[in-house]
Amino acid sequence: MTSAYQQLESRFHRINALGEAAGVLGWDMAAMMPEGGAVARTEQLVVLAAVRHDLLTAAEVGDWLAAAEDDAQNLSLWQGANLREMRRIWQHATALDSAFVTRMTRACKTCEGLWRTARPDDDFKAVLPALRTVLELSREEATIKSEIFGCSPYDALLDSYEPGGSSAQIDVIFDDYVAFFPDFLGHVMEAQGAEPAPPCGPFPVEKQVALGREMMAVVGFDFKHGRLDRSLHPFCGGVPDDVRLTTRYDEENFLTALLGVLHETGHAMYDRGLPTDWRLQPVGAPRGMVLHESQSLLLEMQACRSAEFIAVLAGKVRDILGVSGPTYEAENLLALNNRVAPGFIRLDADEITYPAHVILRYRLERALIEGRMDADDLPMAWNDGMDDLLGLRPPCDRLGCLQDIHWYDGAWGYFPTYSLGAMAAAQIFDAAHRANPDLLSQIGQGNFAPLMAWLGREIHSQASVMSTDALLQQATGRSLDPSIFQAHLKARYLNA
Amino acid sequence: MTSAYQQLESRFHRINALGEAAGVLGWDMAAMMPEGGAVARTEQLVVLAAVRHDLLTAAEVGDWLAAAEDDAQNLSLWQGANLREMRRIWQHATALDSAFVTRMTRACKTCEGLWRTARPDDDFKAVLPALRTVLELSREEATIKSEIFGCSPYDALLDSYEPGGSSAQIDVIFDDYVAFFPDFLGHVMEAQGAEPAPPCGPFPVEKQVALGREMMAVVGFDFKHGRLDRSLHPFCGGVPDDVRLTTRYDEENFLTALLGVLHETGHAMYDRGLPTDWRLQPVGAPRGMVLHESQSLLLEMQACRSAEFIAVLAGKVRDILGVSGPTYEAENLLALNNRVAPGFIRLDADEITYPAHVILRYRLERALIEGRMDADDLPMAWNDGMDDLLGLRPPCDRLGCLQDIHWYDGAWGYFPTYSLGAMAAAQIFDAAHRANPDLLSQIGQGNFAPLMAWLGREIHSQASVMSTDALLQQATGRSLDPSIFQAHLKARYLNA
Repeated sequence: MTSAYQQLESRFHRINALGEAAGVLGWDMAAMMPEGGAVARTEQLVVLAAVRHDLLTAAEVGDWLAAAEDDAQNLSLWQGANLREMRRIWQHATALDSAFVTRMTRACKTCEGLWRTARPDDDFKAVLPALRTVLELSREEATIKSEIFGCSPYDALLDSYEPGGSSAQIDVIFDDYVAFFPDFLGHVMEAQGAEPAPPCGPFPVEKQVALGREMMAVVGFDFKHGRLDRSLHPFCGGVPDDVRLTTRYDEENFLTALLGVLHETGHAMYDRGLPTDWRLQPVGAPRGMVLHESQSLLLEMQACRSAEFIAVLAGKVRDILGVSGPTYEAENLLALNNRVAPGFIRLDADEITYPAHVILRYRLERALIEGRMDADDLPMAWNDGMDDLLGLRPPCDRLGCLQDIHWYDGAWGYFPTYSLGAMAAAQIFDAAHRANPDLLSQIGQGNFAPLMAWLGREIHSQASVMSTDALLQQATGRSLDPSIFQAHLKARYLNA
Repeated sequence: MTSAYQQLESRFHRINALGEAAGVLGWDMAAMMPEGGAVARTEQLVVLAAVRHDLLTAAEVGDWLAAAEDDAQNLSLWQGANLREMRRIWQHATALDSAFVTRMTRACKTCEGLWRTARPDDDFKAVLPALRTVLELSREEATIKSEIFGCSPYDALLDSYEPGGSSAQIDVIFDDYVAFFPDFLGHVMEAQGAEPAPPCGPFPVEKQVALGREMMAVVGFDFKHGRLDRSLHPFCGGVPDDVRLTTRYDEENFLTALLGVLHETGHAMYDRGLPTDWRLQPVGAPRGMVLHESQSLLLEMQACRSAEFIAVLAGKVRDILGVSGPTYEAENLLALNNRVAPGFIRLDADEITYPAHVILRYRLERALIEGRMDADDLPMAWNDGMDDLLGLRPPCDRLGCLQDIHWYDGAWGYFPTYSLGAMAAAQIFDAAHRANPDLLSQIGQGNFAPLMAWLGREIHSQASVMSTDALLQQATGRSLDPSIFQAHLKARYLNA
């Protein structure tokens, strides 16, 4: 007889195989699809989402969950964790009725479409009515889910991106960073030398592709299980056994694409390291966006902006791009990669000011979701916040509250995971380094195998078997501790 | 209130959107996917097929069909045709229980896998036991479906590829060709001049790609709605609004890839011309494999091997490939493209001998399905048949009954559509030419718009609203008439 738990496994296998199909189609849409395919592709993705939703919310799934939970003492550790993840996913899916989901989908699609022209036009008012609607529906979603999950409305949204995430914890961590960084930033800017020499293009795309592929291979990416292509915005898509990375190329500066590739390779290595025994099961999925971002930033920021790695990189740059001279020496490349300066745009921000961008957004989105602020107030509140945090006042909304797609496409509660991820990256790299003091010298020989083996064991292969907090405690000996990120910044930027 | 017919439309919309998703994933698998992605991709496709099968065979669909048929007098012409197509697709899907389908899928997969090594190894015995199993199950399927459709077992299999196809009609047509072609072939071979000069490579792939894209554009392919990529075997995949063509390149001979591209472009133009109002509905699908193949062969064989087109091509070849000299003059290219010689391999066959290859397979597969022959007898029967038809005796099974994937992968009843398609192509092109006597001179100016407009109106936009026979009668004034194909051959090869 098939147990309720086995029924659930086979149902989720089906749901997640369709999710993988959607993942590949999403990659294709961004990297391969001609523009005339958009309508048909959208319909394919809408139907896939609807079928997955139906399979997930069918009456029998609730019955199976209850029966499997009654019988949970017979499950293994991983099966039990799998069942918990199933319940959580089911709660998110059943919280909202399908009429609400349709209204929400339509509102987000409309708003995102308007945002795409409002941003270049610097016209916040053009998107404001649509944003009001999205916000209203998001508040409604947050309220409904907060009752189901027994948490605050904001935390109910956060849970979609970072299961179990808590704004109480985030407040402490972010307040601490706000107390720390302004003085520190001042010291770093005083201490940093003259502007390093910029690379002098053009760097032909095919040579940049060769460099990117070479550096991916150095890190340990297996091209039998993935590809590198181009898209408007870099991302890591596809499925764990066939990871599809993309980047974009600037012919004037090869560093943009290269650091993007290394960032996405960090994401890719996490996906590749997920346990094969639990493919297509909820427990086999990445733990959440904090850990996912920690893996991309660990590679990009911790490992690949180290002096040791930059020395390896400098050799490859000379060989593959065919350039030479002081600009391409390790010393200058290091200075270029670690240059610090406050600016308006989050995506261009350095490691020190990036969290300030995120903290601004986190504070605003909480106020918006909790009804302490309205969408109309956003431009003013944004500019005031930038002034407070970074001493810069955006001259226009294009450089202010129109810059990110988040919110306009309905992604509320996502932003904090970027900086929690950066902090987790520092903490995890520190633990890996303590476990293996030769780590950086190995990286300096182009040998990432020991680092990747450690990450695979401690992080990747753990998938969703425990909470982010439990996983960090097991891998690093403690809960998320922002002082380690601060220590990393001090060491890197002040040699302290 | 939603009518039963409307319920069916929305169910088939869903089923076919998932089918389109599978179509794009299939293209990706052949053109983009790294080898390590195969297991995950297969699972995605298996689940998509299972979900589509469940949606199609759910109890309510039979009820809706019955109710909609009771109410059919209220349907428009296209709706009525849509309903008939739904019934036919439903009958195919419900004919076999899921245990049988699983056994069949497994048997075909196993047999195809063994064939992939048996062919290069020239080892028919290695694949024979698996082929016996596939044949046995195919006979069972044919018997079950023959009762449902009220036709012969062979015709029940043929119906999957050519709805309403009839072996009685095929027998007449093929017997007629067998009576015609041997003498004709003798005359052509006597009459044809010395071997034309072969192209002299290497022709770099990127130049061949540019040539292929240019010729696709000349024909009228819109790259906003499709792509050209590479795969091991050329095919036309994707979806009507985003057609994905592939080819393979031989650096020694650019004609192989180019004619392949033109052939697939013919398929693509059919898909592109399907009525947008009926996207994702059964009546909006191509009519069957005979008409689909007619569109690829009309372009490749009728239009693009004409002297008029070859003159256009010769100019593009010189410009894009950067070659010159007598080999690349129109006269020599024409002779190369229309060279005739019997051979062992169907895929390499010329226009005159190709039907003989198909007729051999058709006769053998009918005998096998009807139980008049066993799989064990295949090599001997094949070689005898080749000897009879083309006067050649294959020295090994690799050049004989192991050459095609069909049968080993369970595709019984497919072969005749190739030659029926070639004959339909001649008949349709002849009708287009009679309607527009300037057709060939327009093609000689690189102007395919009038031809494509005619095909779009008469064939492509008709989709599945009527039978292949009715469509041919409407477009050309008569049922499939093989004498037009013979007249085409006489005109082309004997100037008769």
